[in-house]
Amino acid sequence: MKSFVYPQDLGCLKKAMQEALEIKHDRYKYQHLGKNKTLMMIFFNNSLRTRLSTQKAAMNLGMNVIVLDVNAGAWKLETERGVIMDGDKAEHLLEAIPVMASYCDVIGVRSFAGLTDRDYDYAETVLNQFLKYSGKPVFAMETATVHPLQSFADLITMEESWAKENNLPFLNGNYQNFDFNHKKMKVVLTWAPHCRALPQAVPNSFAQWMLAAPDVELVVTHPEGYELDPAFLQYTDPVSGEVKNAVVEYNQKKALEGADFVYAKNWSCPGVTNPELYGQILSKDMSWTIDSEHMSWTNNGKFLHCLPVRRGLIVTDDVIESENSLVIPEAANREISCSVVLKRILESL
Amino acid sequence: MKSFVYPQDLGCLKKAMQEALEIKHDRYKYQHLGKNKTLMMIFFNNSLRTRLSTQKAAMNLGMNVIVLDVNAGAWKLETERGVIMDGDKAEHLLEAIPVMASYCDVIGVRSFAGLTDRDYDYAETVLNQFLKYSGKPVFAMETATVHPLQSFADLITMEESWAKENNLPFLNGNYQNFDFNHKKMKVVLTWAPHCRALPQAVPNSFAQWMLAAPDVELVVTHPEGYELDPAFLQYTDPVSGEVKNAVVEYNQKKALEGADFVYAKNWSCPGVTNPELYGQILSKDMSWTIDSEHMSWTNNGKFLHCLPVRRGLIVTDDVIESENSLVIPEAANREISCSVVLKRILESL
Amino acid sequence: MKSFVYPQDLGCLKKAMQEALEIKHDRYKYQHLGKNKTLMMIFFNNSLRTRLSTQKAAMNLGMNVIVLDVNAGAWKLETERGVIMDGDKAEHLLEAIPVMASYCDVIGVRSFAGLTDRDYDYAETVLNQFLKYSGKPVFAMETATVHPLQSFADLITMEESWAKENNLPFLNGNYQNFDFNHKKMKVVLTWAPHCRALPQAVPNSFAQWMLAAPDVELVVTHPEGYELDPAFLQYTDPVSGEVKNAVVEYNQKKALEGADFVYAKNWSCPGVTNPELYGQILSKDMSWTIDSEHMSWTNNGKFLHCLPVRRGLIVTDDVIESENSLVIPEAANREISCSVVLKRILESL
Repeated sequence: MKSFVYPQDLGCLKKAMQEALEIKHDRYKYQHLGKNKTLMMIFFNNSLRTRLSTQKAAMNLGMNVIVLDVNAGAWKLETERGVIMDGDKAEHLLEAIPVMASYCDVIGVRSFAGLTDRDYDYAETVLNQFLKYSGKPVFAMETATVHPLQSFADLITMEESWAKENNLPFLNGNYQNFDFNHKKMKVVLTWAPHCRALPQAVPNSFAQWMLAAPDVELVVTHPEGYELDPAFLQYTDPVSGEVKNAVVEYNQKKALEGADFVYAKNWSCPGVTNPELYGQILSKDMSWTIDSEHMSWTNNGKFLHCLPVRRGLIVTDDVIESENSLVIPEAANREISCSVVLKRILESL
Repeated sequence: MKSFVYPQDLGCLKKAMQEALEIKHDRYKYQHLGKNKTLMMIFFNNSLRTRLSTQKAAMNLGMNVIVLDVNAGAWKLETERGVIMDGDKAEHLLEAIPVMASYCDVIGVRSFAGLTDRDYDYAETVLNQFLKYSGKPVFAMETATVHPLQSFADLITMEESWAKENNLPFLNGNYQNFDFNHKKMKVVLTWAPHCRALPQAVPNSFAQWMLAAPDVELVVTHPEGYELDPAFLQYTDPVSGEVKNAVVEYNQKKALEGADFVYAKNWSCPGVTNPELYGQILSKDMSWTIDSEHMSWTNNGKFLHCLPVRRGLIVTDDVIESENSLVIPEAANREISCSVVLKRILESL
Repeated sequence: MKSFVYPQDLGCLKKAMQEALEIKHDRYKYQHLGKNKTLMMIFFNNSLRTRLSTQKAAMNLGMNVIVLDVNAGAWKLETERGVIMDGDKAEHLLEAIPVMASYCDVIGVRSFAGLTDRDYDYAETVLNQFLKYSGKPVFAMETATVHPLQSFADLITMEESWAKENNLPFLNGNYQNFDFNHKKMKVVLTWAPHCRALPQAVPNSFAQWMLAAPDVELVVTHPEGYELDPAFLQYTDPVSGEVKNAVVEYNQKKALEGADFVYAKNWSCPGVTNPELYGQILSKDMSWTIDSEHMSWTNNGKFLHCLPVRRGLIVTDDVIESENSLVIPEAANREISCSVVLKRILESL
């Protein structure tokens, strides 16, 4: 696997899920793969879970890890071409990328959306420069438009929860028996209010991965104007060619009815209908905050969120602390999703 | 050992000292214990010695190490419950703790006293949340009220120095012969002036550990108003039930007379007699600075300080650079005290 | 090898080059040397290449690595003696150095010139305190006046390029055949304009290493006033006693004529003729920027720069992106030069 940005990069999702469950059963099984291989994690933005879980996954696989915070202890990087660099940016990404790549075997990149220039963000300008100029396998640790390690962990978490609730046979170490052949799960991705403008990377990827999972029925709900980019609301299976679409439902209550899983997340305006509103906060409507009443509309639904989460805005204390909250095992599965990705990359070196 | 905060956590102190001397003799002896075990070091505050010595100790034991500076490259963490998180803190400690814990086997926490709310600090609010919610062994890398890795290293340093001066038989690799059965050492903990308000963690722990050591006679000296919390001035031996008290002597010269070891340290007002003065600077009396005249009152006493130390305020150049200064071997022993703690924790996993 | 600051520290440069090519051929060959050895990298200033390549080299050699950013997460350090430390610097280098040294086996130090006090900078005050007080091998990761890891990598890069162009027999793994017995290479070190005042460490070291290489004819060109310190423009071979001098040519065009290699770099006034101008910008003359016209004067010359480079000031886009640009392999060779240095140090422990 030469890069990891979209679910398609994993090929057969069933096989990827089996590997995830296998690695969760024995995290050190593939430790020989990483000997004398170096992962470089490059952060243009802050991180807690991604930093820690990726580092842990790489160490599980026997890799050496170098962490680079571009804004702390390194030089600021110019990302535009053809400029006279007489400002505060001491180095151009066009040099920095091949240089950094020369000291490692695999690259992880975190580079958030700036939320001011939709074209720049949705062209994945920074990520694509890494893909083009590094000459090394690159995986996304949340980029301008996607966060696939999160969504893969989300999927693992829902499948595990569902299997536990329904006593499915692939649990208890029988990971090779995992398949998607069970009752469809109703998954609702719901917008929730927040005090700051946030990127669309998590909801974009989440929608995409849920559509890629054969056992998921996806409903997306949000106030008017928050429509996600259509590219993420339709998915064509790379093997079967089957096309799957998300259902968009503006009435949050109607959307949540009968939900097996509620995935709450804030995002700023994706600028689909009006590009000038891109990255803006259109609503802080607190009636969208997930509280116990919202959860009562569901089918005893489980609550998920990628974290970090603002309590009192996205979700109430009682919901996130309830037995139906999966946020902690969800975060813990970041180590697993990343382990699968790194294992695949190491196997391809 | 499930946590390390107080001397009692080590059980028999003689045995812990023997282990310390054993590990100092062969730092890599227990390297097998740490294989595929990950230490997560979480810093809410700055660190030099603790960061480096803990990392070194963990690597000696074969562990993987992840260092997290909460205020650099991660999210700011909310520590209070029941708030609407619309400020600058993006994540709640109640999520962050179990998440961080899910990526490691052992947690070290540094979280200093805020010095504004005595109850909050002395309740060890942050440390206790880690103890309660992480589900992993936790050790203190200096918390609001204690710094046990430092005090354990202080004890090792004094025992080594005393043994060298008195040709005691446990030196030269005969660590199994170590015991406390020798002439009592007079140890004086003396307050000294400083330009900023400092926590009480070091003097608290130091007093506690000196009382826990059967061969130490402890005198504490400081200006009026700097009385340490009584909980740290009395120690009940967990095995024998014996109770030992520190002597408090307000006359610094009288306290230092005949001292074998002088431990200088500044601390701000502990607020024992007047809680409203908690964390304040009550005195900058430079007559308390340890200079060669002060040292002349002692029994050719050795000088110790946990570092970092402000020269010219706490101690003069000539004293800290003298042959009787133990500050460098004292700091070096941080690697040893931490090695014992991590070894014990690894053995209990 | 007890320290690495100057080319003389490597002894026979031919042998060092052979080791470099050997290690490049098999980076993990000497991995056994670093077992249970710890490198401490201490940064008083920012770093990208040095941080990453040094870490990589150390891991290749099986070492443990601790990275310390003095200005991020640690205490600010006082470097002057005899002061009352009541300012923002919490710790004195005289304590910090032996303490840091006690937790490691090898120390790398980065400490840039302050450019305000020529005597302080050119006395290598900080580096020399590490050499004097650490008791451990110390190597320069760019100090006030030198950057030897860079210059050694520059030399490796030029030799490789020259061998490739001329089909010299030591390529293709025959590293043991490397020698300097080939046609002399004309190397030009040229000043170029920059928006900020930069240290002289890179040009100083570059001149020194080029003079140390028997196959290099060195010409240095810069505007009036930018004369490098004479100590770096003359080199006495430690074995043969032969003295070699750089040619200084103020006419850039004349200097570049027939050049095989063009090494562009900005530096601020070295203050040789007028110490009061030390560290100042005397010229921003853009006619010195290396563009394709400048390169046309050379003997199909290769372009080098230590990076980070300001495009549009030092060099134009087309030159740095041309086939004759060696900046990326040059940076990649930082891993190699550092590997040789660390191998030598480890062998001497």
